[in-house]
This record gives sequence, C-alpha cells and structure tokens, in this order.
Amino acid sequence: MLTISFIPFREFERVKDSKVEKFQKLQILSEMCRFNALSAVKKAGSGHLGSSLSALDINIMLYFEVMNTIEKGIDSPDRDIYYSSKGHDCPGQYSVLFAAGILTWDQLLKLRRLGGLDGHPDVSIPGMEANTGSLGMGISKAKGMAIAKGMKGYGGTVFVMTGDGELQEGQIWESLQTAAHQKIHKIIVIVDFNKIQTDKLVKEVIDLGNIEKKFDIFGWHVERCDGHDFNAMDKAFKTLRGIKDKPGVLIADTVKGKGVSFMEGPASLKEGNGVYKWHSGAPGDDDYERGSNELSARIDALLAGCGLAPLSPEVVETREKNRPRLKDAAEKVVNAYGEALVDIGEKRKDIIVLDADLSADCGLRPFEKAFPERFIENGIAEQDMVSMAGGLALHGFLPVVNSFGVFLSSRANEQIYNNATEGTKIIYVCHYAGIIPAGPGKSHQSLRDISLFSALPNCVIIEPCNSQETRAALEWCVSETKDNCMMRLAISPSPGKIGLPDDYRFEIGKGAVLKDGEEAVIFAYGPVMLHEALIASELLREKGFSLKVVNMPWLNRVDQGWIEEAIGNCRAIYVLDNHFTRGGLGDSILNGLNESEKLRGKPYSKIAIDDYPVWGTPQEVLKHHRVDGESLAERIYN
Amino acid sequence: MLTISFIPFREFERVKDSKVEKFQKLQILSEMCRFNALSAVKKAGSGHLGSSLSALDINIMLYFEVMNTIEKGIDSPDRDIYYSSKGHDCPGQYSVLFAAGILTWDQLLKLRRLGGLDGHPDVSIPGMEANTGSLGMGISKAKGMAIAKGMKGYGGTVFVMTGDGELQEGQIWESLQTAAHQKIHKIIVIVDFNKIQTDKLVKEVIDLGNIEKKFDIFGWHVERCDGHDFNAMDKAFKTLRGIKDKPGVLIADTVKGKGVSFMEGPASLKEGNGVYKWHSGAPGDDDYERGSNELSARIDALLAGCGLAPLSPEVVETREKNRPRLKDAAEKVVNAYGEALVDIGEKRKDIIVLDADLSADCGLRPFEKAFPERFIENGIAEQDMVSMAGGLALHGFLPVVNSFGVFLSSRANEQIYNNATEGTKIIYVCHYAGIIPAGPGKSHQSLRDISLFSALPNCVIIEPCNSQETRAALEWCVSETKDNCMMRLAISPSPGKIGLPDDYRFEIGKGAVLKDGEEAVIFAYGPVMLHEALIASELLREKGFSLKVVNMPWLNRVDQGWIEEAIGNCRAIYVLDNHFTRGGLGDSILNGLNESEKLRGKPYSKIAIDDYPVWGTPQEVLKHHRVDGESLAERIYN
Repeated sequence: MLTISFIPFREFERVKDSKVEKFQKLQILSEMCRFNALSAVKKAGSGHLGSSLSALDINIMLYFEVMNTIEKGIDSPDRDIYYSSKGHDCPGQYSVLFAAGILTWDQLLKLRRLGGLDGHPDVSIPGMEANTGSLGMGISKAKGMAIAKGMKGYGGTVFVMTGDGELQEGQIWESLQTAAHQKIHKIIVIVDFNKIQTDKLVKEVIDLGNIEKKFDIFGWHVERCDGHDFNAMDKAFKTLRGIKDKPGVLIADTVKGKGVSFMEGPASLKEGNGVYKWHSGAPGDDDYERGSNELSARIDALLAGCGLAPLSPEVVETREKNRPRLKDAAEKVVNAYGEALVDIGEKRKDIIVLDADLSADCGLRPFEKAFPERFIENGIAEQDMVSMAGGLALHGFLPVVNSFGVFLSSRANEQIYNNATEGTKIIYVCHYAGIIPAGPGKSHQSLRDISLFSALPNCVIIEPCNSQETRAALEWCVSETKDNCMMRLAISPSPGKIGLPDDYRFEIGKGAVLKDGEEAVIFAYGPVMLHEALIASELLREKGFSLKVVNMPWLNRVDQGWIEEAIGNCRAIYVLDNHFTRGGLGDSILNGLNESEKLRGKPYSKIAIDDYPVWGTPQEVLKHHRVDGESLAERIYN
Repeated sequence: MLTISFIPFREFERVKDSKVEKFQKLQILSEMCRFNALSAVKKAGSGHLGSSLSALDINIMLYFEVMNTIEKGIDSPDRDIYYSSKGHDCPGQYSVLFAAGILTWDQLLKLRRLGGLDGHPDVSIPGMEANTGSLGMGISKAKGMAIAKGMKGYGGTVFVMTGDGELQEGQIWESLQTAAHQKIHKIIVIVDFNKIQTDKLVKEVIDLGNIEKKFDIFGWHVERCDGHDFNAMDKAFKTLRGIKDKPGVLIADTVKGKGVSFMEGPASLKEGNGVYKWHSGAPGDDDYERGSNELSARIDALLAGCGLAPLSPEVVETREKNRPRLKDAAEKVVNAYGEALVDIGEKRKDIIVLDADLSADCGLRPFEKAFPERFIENGIAEQDMVSMAGGLALHGFLPVVNSFGVFLSSRANEQIYNNATEGTKIIYVCHYAGIIPAGPGKSHQSLRDISLFSALPNCVIIEPCNSQETRAALEWCVSETKDNCMMRLAISPSPGKIGLPDDYRFEIGKGAVLKDGEEAVIFAYGPVMLHEALIASELLREKGFSLKVVNMPWLNRVDQGWIEEAIGNCRAIYVLDNHFTRGGLGDSILNGLNESEKLRGKPYSKIAIDDYPVWGTPQEVLKHHRVDGESLAERIYN
C-alpha cells in the first residue's frame, strides 16, 4: 500500500520555537516544506515540483526572514508583497504559507481540488497576491502595486519571482525598461535561475546569455548568489533593500528539483538524456516513496543535529500501489496529432513546425525527431514565434504553430491578425483547449480561443473528437483549404473514446450524428463535451426522453443543408460549448439557424461556461459548471 | 490658390543617368523623394511625415546602393528584402519605390486612396514585403524570411527598419534574443534613431538607455553612424554585410523631419515647447508651400552644383487655399472623453490614467496636465501597461487604460483576461474604433475589438455616439458598475452630430430611438454608423419605406423589455456593426432575439464588415464595404 503523509502545523511550530541557529532553522523549515509540497502534488495527481523545489529556499528566506508580511499580516497595507510570476511553483509557496500559519491543513490537502488550492496562483487564496501562471506579467503588475503603495503612503516592498525561461517573454523586457525609467524602486525581482525550462536546458532552448549584464543595461541593480544559501541570500537582500534609486534583481542560482536527489537538474538530465522529467506531473508511487523517504531522513538528521526529536508526519491517504491510470490507457488526440504531423510532414516538405517550449505536451517530439531541420524551437516567445511563422508563410512555407490555446490565441493575437491580413496560410494549433484538465486553473483553461479567432474572415476553426478525426482534420487543414486554420486539441486523455459512424467523411461545415434521437438535439465537439453529451443522452433515455447527439467539429463554418438535416424534426436544439457563452459554436449555430427559413425561430439554447472556470478534478469542475452528463440531462429535461 | 506638385519619373531618370558622384547623386535623389513624400501626404490629407523624412536617406542608400532588389527584380527569390517594421514611414518608402520605377505615377498620387497606396505597408502593393504598422513584429518576420531563404538555398539578406520608440515593445526583445540564439545571420536591422516618438522625446517617454550595449548584450553585432551620411552608411553596411556569425544592427542617428527645416526635431520641439507636431497629419497649406519651396530650392541648388538644370515638378492639383476642414469644426467624441475624464478625475481621486504613447490622439492631454501625478506614460508597451493597471487595481485604484483599439484589444489581450480573472475593475478605452478613418489601413482599423473582449464574463462593452453620451458612458463606467468596462471611441470627427432624445437616460442594455419608423428597424452605434443609418432612413423615406433607427451603445448587454419595445411591430430587424460580422453587436442582438418568445424567429439580418477592410477616404471605404447610407438603403429596400 502507498501512504501519503504531510507534516502538520504543530511540527512547524516546534521547529520555529526551537533554539536553533537562524539559518539552520530556515533550512529545516525549507526541507519540511519540500516534504509537504511533494505530498501535495502526489495527492493531487499533478502539479509542478521541479521549480517548487528550486524556489523553496527563496520562499522560506523571504517569508521568514526578509519580509514583514507574517508580522504585519497578509491584509496589512504596509506589508511586503511576494508572488511568483511564473506561478507554477505554487505548491512550494503553499507549503510555506502553511508553515507560516496562513493556509490551513484542510487547504494544504486540497491542492488542485474544488474549493482548495489552485494549480496556479489565485487571489482568492489567502496570501496569494496576484493571478499568475501565464508568463511574463509579474514585474508589470509589481509596477502597479509599488506605485499604489507610494501614492497611498504605505510601506512595503514588492518581491516578484520569475523563472529563467520566463525571461524569453517580451513583456519581461518591456517591464524592465519601463520600471527603470519610471524610477520604481520598491520592487525586488528574484530570478529562480535553475537553468532548466519545461524539459530542456534554457541554454539549449533559447539561451539568455549574460543575464546579469542584461538586467544591468536595462537599468536595474543586480545581485547574484546561491539561491539555496541562506547566508548569501541574507546578504544579497540586505544590499538590495539598501538600493534606493533603482529597482533591483537577485539572480539566484538554484537547482531544479532541489532536495530530491533524482529530481535534481544535473542528475535528472543525465538520466533523461538531456530531458528533464519533473517539471510537471506527479511522481509515480515508487518515486514518491523514494523522494519522501529521502526528505524525511534528511529532516530527521538535521533535527538530530540540533538536538531535536525526529519528525512525526501524519498519514492522510492510504491507497493500493501502482493503480492503473486513465492516462496510461486512454486515447489522446494530441498523440494522434503528433503522429499525423510526421506522416504529413513526410509528404509535404513545405511544412515547418514551430514550438514555444511545449514540444512534449503538444505532441511534437515525433516531428522534432523525424525532421529536426523543419522544427523550430522558439522558447517562451509566442509573439515572436507567430510573426516568424508569418515570414515563413510569405516565403512559401506552411507553418504549423503550436502552443496552449490560452496563450497562443491571446498572447499572440495581434500577430495572428497581422499574418492573416497578408493572405498567407498558417495552421495554428491551440492545445489544452477547453475547461479540462482544470487542475492548473484559469491561466491554463482555454475558454476564449474560439472567440479570439472568430473575427478573422479567412480562418477556419476546428476541434476534432478522436484520433481518427484529428488526423482527418489535420489533413484537411494542410491540403483542402487556402484559409488559415485553427485546430483546438484537448490535452487530457479521453474519458471514453468517441466513436464516429463508419461512413463519416470530414467535410467542411458538416458533422456527424453519434446517437439518434427525436425529441431534442445537442451539438457538441471534442472528446470532453461529446462524452458528457452522450452520458446525458443515456440518462435521458432512461427517463424516456430521446436526445440526438451530434458531433460538430466545425466551430465557425456551418453547412445549411446539413444542419437542417441534422436537426430534422427535433423540437428543441442545444449546443454544448467547451468555451465561454459568447463567441463559441453556440453563436455559429445560432447564426446558422437565423439564416435558415426552416430553422429560424426554433427553440434554441446555448449551454456553455458562463463564468470564470473553477479549478478541481474534471468531474468536480464539469459538475460545478453544470456541463457534466448528469447536469446536462437535468437542464434538458426540465 | 494652392498647387500640389510632384516630381515625375523622367526627372529621377535624368538624375540617375547623370555623371554625378555616387553619394552626391543619392543625396539629390533623396531630397527629390522628400519632395514627393511631402506632396503625397499633403494630397492625401494625412500621413506620417516626420519619420518618412528621417528614414529617407537610409531608404535611398538601401535601394540604390546596398541592396540587389532593383537589379534582381522585386519578385526574384534571390533579392534582398527591405521593409519597415514601424510602417508609418511608408510615404517615404513609396517615393523611393517610385524613383526606382517600382511604383507608378498613378499610384504615387493615390496615397491613402482606394486602390492606391495604403497608409501602412500592405503586401498587395508592389515592392512592399510585409504588412506592418503595429509595432514590434518586423524582426520576428525577418527571422522567418531569412530561414526560408536559407532552406530554399536562395540568396539575399533581409533588411528591417525599426523605430526607436518601437524598441519599447516587448516583441522586439523576444526577437533579438531568439534571432541570436537561432544563429540567423542574414538579417540586418536598422534603427531609425530619430530620438522622437509620437510627439515627445524617447528619453522623456521611456528612455532606451544605451541601445548599442542592449543590442550587443542580446548577441547582435552593432554598428552606429549618421543616418544622413551616405559615406558613413556605406562603410557601416559593408561591415555588417561581412558579419557572418550573428545578426547585425545599424543604429542610424537621424533627425525626425529631416530636410524640412521647421519639421526637424530640434527646431520643432523648441517651437512646440517639447511637443513634436509632425509625426502624423498633413501640413497646412502655408506649411506645405514653405516646405515644398524649401525642398525644391535645395534640390535646384544641388543640381546646379553638379551642372544640372533645375527641377521641373508637375502640378497635379490646384485648390483654394485654407479651405475649412470638417475636423476643425465637427464634434469629436474623444474631446468629450478627455474633458469628462478631467471632471470625473477631480472627484474621484482613485482614478489613474495610463497611456501608451498616444496621449494627444486619445484625448488625454487635459488629464495629463491637470493631474500629472495620476497620469502614467508607459511608452509603446501595451502588455506592460495593462498588467501594471492590474497591479494598481488590486491595490485600490481605478485604472483607465488607453490605446488604439486594434492594439489594446489584441496586443494585450491575455493581460486583460488575467486582470479580469482577479475580480478587480479596470476601464479600457479602445480609441480609433471601427473602420473609419481608413487611410492608415488594416493595422489601425479596429474591427475585432468587440469580439476580443466579448468572452470576458465581467466586462461591459459600450460605444457612445456623441459628446453627451460619451460623458454619460464614462460616468456610468466609473460609478455605476462593478464590472470591467471597455469603451470604444471613434477617433475621427463626426460627419454629422448625432442627436439624442431629450428624455434619454443612459441605462444598461437600453438604447434610444433616433428616428421613428414602422416597416423595419436598424440598430447601430457610434457616430460613424449611426450617421450612415440615418442617411439610409432618409433615402428610404423618399421611396416610401419607413426605417426606424435605434442607437444601441451597449454592445454586449441587451435589456429584453427594452428591445421588444424598440422593435415593436417592425417586420424586419437589422443590425449595423462597425465591426467584423462575427462577435459584434449583431451577435448580441441575435442572442437577445433568441431569448425572447416574442422576437425569436423574426426576420433578422446582420450588416457588418465581412472581409479585411480596404483603405481609402471614409466615403470610398464605407461604399466599398456597402455600409454607407446609400448602400444600406439598397440592401434594406431590396
């Protein structure tokens, strides 16, 4: 059996109250927080450990030594403020906030669960000062906060953590340049310089060069030290606090995965042949036990060295070891996409694949390996990637541009528009589309991407529902249209494989009936929502209500003849959007109905996400927003 | 009488064929191009002279000495490529392309006219290599082009001009960092370092510091010289051509407005008390004559010095001098906005106004002068500005964020979303909304902004139609809602003042009937489209058809009771959008109709812009897209 344990607050109190040398104590607290962060991610089933661990000593140093936040209180206007601009390191920060008495035991145990702790920072959580998680915004926000403090005459400094890969984002350099000019000196930035971004060395992805000199020439005071050495950090922060005429930065040299030997950057990279595997995702059962044991042994040794009794963690969950997991067996459209990309790339030598540091998540590794000369790794610089694709398209290539939908559709929106106005053709692939997985929260849940592409006259938007349709969709985008294409792809494993009719052909504006029915019809798309719609249909059938389920992968193209046929004699029409209420398929179908003499005026309802999405497990979140099968059945029946 | 003259191609041929020393000849050609650029902008009635003139010698140097483009032909795959990333300096570039025989006389005379030359670069124009005009994308595009050349084995280097203010854009630094890492060495960037951005010194807006060192530390080879000295440029470009291991940049020290004494940076700044007035806009009649005479005198002197006969320009237009202009007398909602901002700012000390280098255009000067401590000039760094506003809002301020709609809604889209998820309140003001003025082309015409804000659940979108409604809208945004607000404002003068009913109250979701009618109803908003709708109503009345015209400033909030009343017994419903077909008011009203038992199924048509907008005069463009009053009347009557 596997047991998951956490260190309770009283143990932190015991250490805090002990008469141990200051920085020795911080080290013990830090290792204890590592233990809890590891357990929190394991319990959640996902989360970012690598940079939680690299940033943990800095977090401890800030909250327990440098900042006045605990002392003043997290609501004091005079408090020092800390947040992480990268945001994904919040499991580490949560464990520190728990150690500080700001978060509760119940909260700590509910990472990535509904009503618990978001997978990326959210201001509704005590102690979290800003919503972050999409990269590059943190220093800009700090400018606003520091000015606000100044104008209101409040005390306190704003401390912002950034990643190193994050320094590839253009907004960072905007904020560095403007902060220096605007003489905002109550900001201290800490770069968690752990040298590894998602899964490769920063210097392999997009080298930052001499970052000390870069900050310096942008007008910032620069300090540099070992981010795991409390004495060195103490000195650096004291110096930075003393700088009154410009903003300051601490380049903290850290080790990704610090504290768990096999997760530490150098060891892990060697083992993975240059690929780091602990950026995100929960460790397997054996790895969790190994890491957890390693940390508790080290903590006990440190405690013993200070004459203190060993640790008493509390077991909070016991489960069978190595249970089978959905994601090991289920179909993933992104895998089908990755394979199709290689097959099509073999035939079409004009295809160039662009990536912004998400190659593995976006299923691009097979193409990257097969055609390295036609794969461009652009780092975390989405705007640059998209405009670069524009240049390639103007000169005869067909670029396939990849990132998570929430980033690609919005961060690079104006660049996409600009390319589209040139009349070239580019395929944009918005991965991680829709509300699921919901663990990482609003920064990652992509519910606006359809609306953000919808007003481009020459762009077709498609979301396929299974492997077969993914391949067909990509082939269509490459070969059958002169328009730009946006493909949305779900990133999570399909909860149930969506079956398509044997005679199904992928034709513009036409979907497929997946389940026949006479009373009402529901249009949906993608593996997540079609699965829920099919469940709803089953549940309604038990009540004697017949709901037709139609797969409609064309999110902004509706064939009038087909939709009239698909609706047939159904008395009511529903559309289920994996998107906010405005701008999704619901609006496309509504426009289609309006254009049809036959359909105009039929009872029609859009079912969609009508508020910012909550975080949690898929079922928690679907149910909360009333788009799970059961809720759908209720909404349609009543 | 005022005469507008251009220098014909034969005169350029005469100079090119003469036996004059190489760089002396380039100087003469350059001054001749200045003459034509000045006349083109004067004839067009708008355009960017300041940086056309600062960049002109560089353009001449590139086309006539450095690049192989004229010799190889503008369609040769082996050609050198040049374009300007800032784009607004195209009147200068067009005059050079005319001198090179690439653009025709007819084209030169049709700057900013339908079928002529776009106010910002467009690839449909011979010799224009990329669509630019929104800042910061040029180097990224060059990366794609240079890689394409490399992969196809073609020759040629990509030369990209940037502005200096443009270096405030984050994408620039993304592209510099990635280009160096990706070892793309067939790119040469030229910074037109004229030291003045829109209307103030770069060092006052957001100082760039030591830009040579910045490029150097980002991995670029840096040369610097006087951008008006052909010998110095020759040497610099030869050096840059020789650099094979990294991309190169020439920092060209130039003078904004170079060649027309009173437009030159130092003189003009002194005269304007630190404000430069020749960035955009056509000179008045007297200024045109003065500038034109100055240039022709200089050209004749240069020609005489080389033993050549004086210039023979051709008069292409003669008109009465100092005619009254619409924009001097007509109402501008942006002025009302600027005044209201001061009045409200007086009462509400929590209001902070943010600007991205468009203070005058956005009507912010009055606020800037009245409350300098609550006005933040952020330079051309929209993402940073928006996130900074987020920080201010989290700490108790009400930020009012300004830029042109096309930039603000798309460049900073993810930052706007991120702020909105924090549950704070921010007012975004999208200036230059809609299709008019159309002279500057697609990079400036904002036809997607409603759709880009529409999927934010907590954001109200409003476009007021006149001064009275602008003031009411701003007051509503500040005082009457907890939601975020997006206000769209037309920038051009109203062709006719829109009158509102005496008893009109600005209430959420409710508009106002401007003209009664029984047969059909048209909903529109803003000064431009309401004006056209009212004209259509007049024209239809002459035909005996009665069209009701309704002002509906709430673009994503529709009061059901009100709309049922507003439609009344009209048999047909129209919405006229100053926006692309998808995502505008048309979709909001369609959703409203669908939710009403009474209205669902009524004949309903959206009238909107269904393709990328053309450039031209307001009437040319409205007519082309069939949204002028006459076309509307036809569309509704038939």
